[in-house]
Amino acid sequence: MHVPAPAEVGISLDEVDTPALIVDLDAFEKNLDHMALLAKKAGVLLRPHAKAHKSAAIAQQQIERGAVGVCAQKVSEAEALVNAGIQNVLISNEIVGAKKVDRLVDLSRRATISVCVDHIEQVRQLSFAAQREGTEVSVLIEVNVGGDRCGVLPGQPALALAQAIDDAPGLRFSGLQAYHNNAQHTRLYVERGDATASAIEKASATATLLGQHGLPCEVITGAGTGTFTFEANSGIYDELQVGSYIFMDADYAQNLDRSGEPVSEFQHSLFVYTTVMSVPSSTKAVVDAGIKSMSFECGFPRVHQASGIEYVGRADEHGVLEIDQQVATVNLGDKLLLIPGHCDPTVNLHEWFVGVRDNKVEAVWPIDARGMIF
Amino acid sequence: MHVPAPAEVGISLDEVDTPALIVDLDAFEKNLDHMALLAKKAGVLLRPHAKAHKSAAIAQQQIERGAVGVCAQKVSEAEALVNAGIQNVLISNEIVGAKKVDRLVDLSRRATISVCVDHIEQVRQLSFAAQREGTEVSVLIEVNVGGDRCGVLPGQPALALAQAIDDAPGLRFSGLQAYHNNAQHTRLYVERGDATASAIEKASATATLLGQHGLPCEVITGAGTGTFTFEANSGIYDELQVGSYIFMDADYAQNLDRSGEPVSEFQHSLFVYTTVMSVPSSTKAVVDAGIKSMSFECGFPRVHQASGIEYVGRADEHGVLEIDQQVATVNLGDKLLLIPGHCDPTVNLHEWFVGVRDNKVEAVWPIDARGMIF
Repeated sequence: MHVPAPAEVGISLDEVDTPALIVDLDAFEKNLDHMALLAKKAGVLLRPHAKAHKSAAIAQQQIERGAVGVCAQKVSEAEALVNAGIQNVLISNEIVGAKKVDRLVDLSRRATISVCVDHIEQVRQLSFAAQREGTEVSVLIEVNVGGDRCGVLPGQPALALAQAIDDAPGLRFSGLQAYHNNAQHTRLYVERGDATASAIEKASATATLLGQHGLPCEVITGAGTGTFTFEANSGIYDELQVGSYIFMDADYAQNLDRSGEPVSEFQHSLFVYTTVMSVPSSTKAVVDAGIKSMSFECGFPRVHQASGIEYVGRADEHGVLEIDQQVATVNLGDKLLLIPGHCDPTVNLHEWFVGVRDNKVEAVWPIDARGMIF
Repeated sequence: MHVPAPAEVGISLDEVDTPALIVDLDAFEKNLDHMALLAKKAGVLLRPHAKAHKSAAIAQQQIERGAVGVCAQKVSEAEALVNAGIQNVLISNEIVGAKKVDRLVDLSRRATISVCVDHIEQVRQLSFAAQREGTEVSVLIEVNVGGDRCGVLPGQPALALAQAIDDAPGLRFSGLQAYHNNAQHTRLYVERGDATASAIEKASATATLLGQHGLPCEVITGAGTGTFTFEANSGIYDELQVGSYIFMDADYAQNLDRSGEPVSEFQHSLFVYTTVMSVPSSTKAVVDAGIKSMSFECGFPRVHQASGIEYVGRADEHGVLEIDQQVATVNLGDKLLLIPGHCDPTVNLHEWFVGVRDNKVEAVWPIDARGMIF
């Protein structure tokens, strides 16, 4: 790795250098166990999304609890995970361009790799490279089931693409990628349910159509932390691609459950640890974690277990805290845990997870695929 | 470095893997030359802020054009620059905690290092470590000249701290850090001028007071790309800490000049290069650069030299483009240049600058201090 680790195993939490990414191991392991149990009960497979953690050490713990493998979003992300020992990766995304396709085909000789397409040109590029290398690549069709980002339309367009894959030398048609990105952060339970029901219906109808034309889907894969209950119990989805459940973040914590309460099935386990570096007044303090330590597009972090202290301003390397003098005092050198607004891109800013239990550092895991954006 | 380079010298721009950070070398060098000339004309020194580029290769080009050294914002950032050959670094920020202070003192034995304080406890920690190591550390007082972030108040509080530094074994009082962070992005020229005039007045009065008490300031340092003209011509500031002028970004481009036009003194020279990976319809395309390739807290990037194409939606690894069919067509595999909303944290997401001239890759520079946040 490029950046030195901010801690070593055995030191206490307050000795960890800041800013650092802290994993509360008790909460984290509960999250891992709980999702594994839910998937098992529903009779679906887990293929957690490694874009959330980018770490082979965490992927390994998910696999030990029954996951069939992981998802990645980029070829370089998959490469980093395979290089660190993960043997089964679905790239749940489209890959375009000769360099990337060549690397993907090369990777598929070293591990069990599959990839998504939503355009005939991607099929041509993959087939060309796979034939040249004398190998076979497993290909899923991404279907637009409501997220309106990538993906072909359900039904006939998906069928035409499946037939093209089936006809293309060096490719094997494997099934459908049917992920509803927009539904994950829809706040109301009933609205998430309705959106996902519509996605399930589109995936199901498409799979039926393909089956009628002799192209059965080995796998229908999708779902995220916001909606997985619906896909898990659909009878249609085979795999869940949940990612954020391991850590949770301030944004996911605003989703409401069936009874209208904030979701509480999974616990916050990821924190940005920060030091108070300036105390300009008794109502204001400045910490050393800003835009280069956390991602802010989902808003400010929350200060963990500290009433009367609010993170109200950010700069590249600074965060401004507002202190309610009635209930809180903050001193220079104090260290605080922040719950980031959005976990995935926050993780991508760091190279190490510092696993803590009972205020002791128990593990330091590299974030193998940090920065692997291509 | 941790991430492989997306290009090698000699290939053409369209062969560069994406997402990648592209530097337009003609524009970049014009920016370097222009600022060097302006500083020379005004008779002030340049100490550009390396937080903007985090790269010894770029720092070296600034020094070759007359800069006395650079600024860094973190000890680890300074370490990375010194390790890559830069010999003079001001850490324009407060450092708190024994580990960081020890590293800072160690670094100051290997290069010319100075650091800021705004609290007596920082003075104690620095003095303790410097004495123990038998060395001397150069210390500036950060004065709150209007930015209301870190810094002691001007006048008496600054004097008290200067006297404490002067009394502290192992420390040498060097002057004032007087940077007005809030003024940099104030849109109206006259308002930037007024805010900076007030900062200049506070810095000047404080320096006079300290001089009257036998503590002359060797250096008064500050200024940014938004306000440097005012500090340069103040007769008070000795050094300019401008950073973003080398690249510019969509946010700085919204500042207005004296005549009410968008500032045009420096050119956009930094771009995020991206590939169209999906074309769901003729009015919409998806590119491979999202939140993990650019920082979004200052808004969406602008698409460079492409009318009728707008970046309108972002996800972790995706960007959504809206296409005006009347004027633009976008095909799968097309590559586009994006002007990021905010340069500094965008640079921090990458490990390589790809320097391009006449559509050829001429340089590939490591971003040495990428991720050095502690």
